[in-house]
Amino acid sequence: MLKQSTSLKVRLPALVVALEVVMLFLYAVFVTYDDDADAKMQTNETRPMDNTLYRDYHFFADVQVMIFVGFGCLLAFLRLYGFSGMVFNFLTATFAIQWAILVQGYFQFYSDGKIHLGVINLLNAEFACAVVLISFGAVLGKVSPVQLLVMALLEVPVFSVTEWAVLKYIKINDAGGSILIHLFACYFGLAVTFVLFRPSLNDGHAKDVTCYQSDILSLMGTLFLWVFWPSFNSALTLKGDDQHRAVLHTFIGLSSSTLTAFAFSAMLNKRGKLTLADIQNVTLAGGVTVGATVDMMITPAAAFALGVMGCTACMTSAASTTFTASQGSSPRWRGICAILLATEETYGPSLYETFAYRAPPEGDPKLLELQKLIPGLKPGLGRSGKEQAVYQVAALFCTVSLAALGGIVTGFVLKLPFLASPSDEWCYDDEVFFEVPSDFDSPGLLKVPIDSQETKV
Amino acid sequence: MLKQSTSLKVRLPALVVALEVVMLFLYAVFVTYDDDADAKMQTNETRPMDNTLYRDYHFFADVQVMIFVGFGCLLAFLRLYGFSGMVFNFLTATFAIQWAILVQGYFQFYSDGKIHLGVINLLNAEFACAVVLISFGAVLGKVSPVQLLVMALLEVPVFSVTEWAVLKYIKINDAGGSILIHLFACYFGLAVTFVLFRPSLNDGHAKDVTCYQSDILSLMGTLFLWVFWPSFNSALTLKGDDQHRAVLHTFIGLSSSTLTAFAFSAMLNKRGKLTLADIQNVTLAGGVTVGATVDMMITPAAAFALGVMGCTACMTSAASTTFTASQGSSPRWRGICAILLATEETYGPSLYETFAYRAPPEGDPKLLELQKLIPGLKPGLGRSGKEQAVYQVAALFCTVSLAALGGIVTGFVLKLPFLASPSDEWCYDDEVFFEVPSDFDSPGLLKVPIDSQETKV
Amino acid sequence: MLKQSTSLKVRLPALVVALEVVMLFLYAVFVTYDDDADAKMQTNETRPMDNTLYRDYHFFADVQVMIFVGFGCLLAFLRLYGFSGMVFNFLTATFAIQWAILVQGYFQFYSDGKIHLGVINLLNAEFACAVVLISFGAVLGKVSPVQLLVMALLEVPVFSVTEWAVLKYIKINDAGGSILIHLFACYFGLAVTFVLFRPSLNDGHAKDVTCYQSDILSLMGTLFLWVFWPSFNSALTLKGDDQHRAVLHTFIGLSSSTLTAFAFSAMLNKRGKLTLADIQNVTLAGGVTVGATVDMMITPAAAFALGVMGCTACMTSAASTTFTASQGSSPRWRGICAILLATEETYGPSLYETFAYRAPPEGDPKLLELQKLIPGLKPGLGRSGKEQAVYQVAALFCTVSLAALGGIVTGFVLKLPFLASPSDEWCYDDEVFFEVPSDFDSPGLLKVPIDSQETKV
Repeated sequence: MLKQSTSLKVRLPALVVALEVVMLFLYAVFVTYDDDADAKMQTNETRPMDNTLYRDYHFFADVQVMIFVGFGCLLAFLRLYGFSGMVFNFLTATFAIQWAILVQGYFQFYSDGKIHLGVINLLNAEFACAVVLISFGAVLGKVSPVQLLVMALLEVPVFSVTEWAVLKYIKINDAGGSILIHLFACYFGLAVTFVLFRPSLNDGHAKDVTCYQSDILSLMGTLFLWVFWPSFNSALTLKGDDQHRAVLHTFIGLSSSTLTAFAFSAMLNKRGKLTLADIQNVTLAGGVTVGATVDMMITPAAAFALGVMGCTACMTSAASTTFTASQGSSPRWRGICAILLATEETYGPSLYETFAYRAPPEGDPKLLELQKLIPGLKPGLGRSGKEQAVYQVAALFCTVSLAALGGIVTGFVLKLPFLASPSDEWCYDDEVFFEVPSDFDSPGLLKVPIDSQETKV
Repeated sequence: MLKQSTSLKVRLPALVVALEVVMLFLYAVFVTYDDDADAKMQTNETRPMDNTLYRDYHFFADVQVMIFVGFGCLLAFLRLYGFSGMVFNFLTATFAIQWAILVQGYFQFYSDGKIHLGVINLLNAEFACAVVLISFGAVLGKVSPVQLLVMALLEVPVFSVTEWAVLKYIKINDAGGSILIHLFACYFGLAVTFVLFRPSLNDGHAKDVTCYQSDILSLMGTLFLWVFWPSFNSALTLKGDDQHRAVLHTFIGLSSSTLTAFAFSAMLNKRGKLTLADIQNVTLAGGVTVGATVDMMITPAAAFALGVMGCTACMTSAASTTFTASQGSSPRWRGICAILLATEETYGPSLYETFAYRAPPEGDPKLLELQKLIPGLKPGLGRSGKEQAVYQVAALFCTVSLAALGGIVTGFVLKLPFLASPSDEWCYDDEVFFEVPSDFDSPGLLKVPIDSQETKV
Repeated sequence: MLKQSTSLKVRLPALVVALEVVMLFLYAVFVTYDDDADAKMQTNETRPMDNTLYRDYHFFADVQVMIFVGFGCLLAFLRLYGFSGMVFNFLTATFAIQWAILVQGYFQFYSDGKIHLGVINLLNAEFACAVVLISFGAVLGKVSPVQLLVMALLEVPVFSVTEWAVLKYIKINDAGGSILIHLFACYFGLAVTFVLFRPSLNDGHAKDVTCYQSDILSLMGTLFLWVFWPSFNSALTLKGDDQHRAVLHTFIGLSSSTLTAFAFSAMLNKRGKLTLADIQNVTLAGGVTVGATVDMMITPAAAFALGVMGCTACMTSAASTTFTASQGSSPRWRGICAILLATEETYGPSLYETFAYRAPPEGDPKLLELQKLIPGLKPGLGRSGKEQAVYQVAALFCTVSLAALGGIVTGFVLKLPFLASPSDEWCYDDEVFFEVPSDFDSPGLLKVPIDSQETKV
């Protein structure tokens, strides 16, 4: 029965070939170079070193390390699921970026019937990819690579539409993507999990455990994410002092949330020891909470405080979820989510100073005055602080709704029978989808099928 | 007998000291700073931030990560050969770069009796180093560190001469080094293996196996190579839009070859599972196939197609090699090579658009016209498309010939008796050249010498 | 007794909360943005891409990888102490940087009653952090995370005062930090170890051993440090050709010390095998020895020679320390230190050419002459070569004295009873401070308490 249901021999190649044929067609018809990558656009006044490549590429490379190495290692924290964690992350991320280049390109870089491609699109696409990978964390161990591709196929457009709608019509500030990226990913993932709910995994799973080496690998993933998070949070801000502040705030917020995570981890453990899952996940909370205001003049101390608050929200929520029903290794992931729900909804928009849309509108004499002080200032919408707060709340609501809706639909699609979904006893197990080396599963965990274990009990 | 033949106590220090004395002498006599690293060349019009350091250094750092971490981890895929894979890569790469700075420096950065040193030389030297490391893959597990140093000592000059001859006299386009780097490395490695052929390793070797942790380590190596490959392919292109395109094409080509590799891996496996060796190696094929045309206006869709084709060539060739005689873990490496042979020879030069040498020559009125459109255009040789194609074929032929010749000579040198070559039963084993910790070889593979195994059979 | 003495449940949160409250207060009162991070300082003549962010950030990111990933992996070389090595490095580094931003900021970036924060401060703070982490190496396995935080709390100010005093009053050249960073860290660590001396650990400890995977992890740490060391050594030099030379010299010095380390490792081993600890540590010696003169016109050959000398000093000293009393895994660390003591004191200041303070003073006609040749030249102090040599010696003496004094005081503070110090038998063991997974300690080392082992003997 195993072979019938989970063999990738036909399903995966068929899906991949179909996707690639369609994408190759779309690339051929719609994708061209943007001005900085187009030889025809270079004139005798073009200075090669002014190319946007040199502005964006190294931030892009940092984010690449985060997505492929950082996430890959982080998701390899299960003892028998290391291959899957790293490899499915690799597969999903690669496809999500390719796909997002087209979908986001259509919304953001489309003109004259073409998507204009430069490093900046790749960077944007990696943000959409991050959304998919965060949602991936919610279904880790319970889905096949075919299901993951389908999830990415559906999530990327829903996210792109949401992002486009929120930024275009509601107009909020969200440089580090706290609202759009993390919140969307969170609710989408929750919604998918809700639909895919497997009651038999409710009491834990024999294979849903870590081992020493997998924990260390996952910790390396955390460190890579931690180290490059300032690049992530600042990659899409305005250049100059804005990006400079984004780097500073992210670093400070991460630092204070890291210290706080250590304190909580020792305090909440009954034997006063550190729990590695806290170090692996909660230390990163500060990078998320500083996100929405990362480029603003919030002061370094505020970034420090946001880091502490984010971590606190994350730890207390994670602690409380131990009382509620948990499914598999999701508590770890829910902890990460909790931070978002808590900070956005509890502390909410009162934390945000907002500039761009509170600037006076075109023609307002105040604008001219301000432009003398801040030359690059573009006309805004003249929103008051309260008005902007209402818009931020509207954006939250809109994002959450679309994410949940998209997640539910996606969940039902993933339940379709031919997607190689692993049965309960084969969850969290590399052996379903990989040729494993001979030492797989030695020397540790007995690999008794769940059924027989339950019989024993 | 083991101690007599493989002890490094005298051989390695003697060789290293000899090499270092010679190199120190050569550095002292011939190496000076280039203009951007020379305090005397800075005038009151020099703007420090215009230094080429800021243009090249971060690309250089990326390539460093690829060479030392990426290759190092990738080559540590064997269960009992992890130390050797990483450490011999470290040793060989370090020496190859030092040596290439001198040898390549003589061909490319030599004037007024001096080699002028800047970060750009280091970058060039790392490309020569990559050649040595790719060839290293062909002899992995079967040679001593002394042999590796000798191989690097011989391969670097042969490569440098080939590169110089091909670029200077035949004049081809090869920004990403598909032809020169990968093809040369491939044939050189094949030639060395041909000479060093060990019939007793033909039926496989008990130690030529992976384990769970070594596979994961190797996968991390792949991810680091994957992530920074755009830096590698674009590091030596013209600055500005050319480099921008090189980044885009490499990323797209890698992505499409990665998806394709997953499809083939599942399809060609009889149980419909993924094979990790495919993910570790074949995913990178696209980075190689886009290499020769990486900076040209080939369109993003063409890069996508090149990635798919490269991966396909690699997988089908690798599959076919399972019918032919294999030696040790080389099939894995031959798969990588196959891609090169296939794409260069089969699809061949018809894939290439070529600009630089097809531009009109000095004095041609067409040149002036074109220079109005493309101001940086240098006079070319006025070659037609067909002419250029002939030259590309000539370059292929020339590269392959010199690589094979050099490889055969090197192979015979490596057979000299005092180079600490490990005997057949001690191949793929860290214990020959390293003090290993007490847990080495537990809990897995029984380490019965090959002879006794054969006796049993 | 274990639970009473080493539980972190109260101690760690109490200390962290206290530190964070104080730091949040200090950040709120004293820290503001520097000009490049302050929106108010941008005028209509500000070009965003001239922001110092783009000059410094990617070097900062490289150093981040070194500190969090490189050091973290390197310190995880013990078989049962991998969690602690990586995680305590993470904790200590995070706190040290936060704290150094304030303390160093007060000495170096303080004006108008505020510390002005930019990426350059973070970079400076990471150098102070590196000092703490090097000293950490001396006490690895024998202290609690609470003790580590206290050590960082004390070491950062002592270092900052020393750095400030030496640079302001004695005025020496030390771009790569050979004297200040490495020498200070070394003597501070030695002094702390001297006070914390545990006679029972003198004969080795059953848990003070590596295993295959931990050695490979540590090797990865070495490779990350090796790869980014040029960024570290050049991050704080003058921009332009100075930084360019710093990169070149560091790379060359590292390369030659790496080759030399391989030669010594094979030569000094009685069976002619390589010892992984040498590859992990001694290969990096060259990065340290080129430090003090890294930005000067010393010629590439001199950098080569400095690398060889540094490595030689390190290996011979390390070999000689095997005759002296050793404590735990410190020999490994002492080897690293030896290099510093040897090169600074033996070869000493005669190696240094010194520019900055030997330049003619303001008003000297020679200055004007020189400024025609080297436009950026600032007036110096007109010191002769000999005078400068005396100052360098004075700086050495001053640094060593303050480091030793600070280390001794810190050592006594760390002996205070409530800092969760692990008892002798629980040294080098993750289980004291971490919840460990079920496979911890299998399949290797028998975890018999030291006492019972001694009874057996």
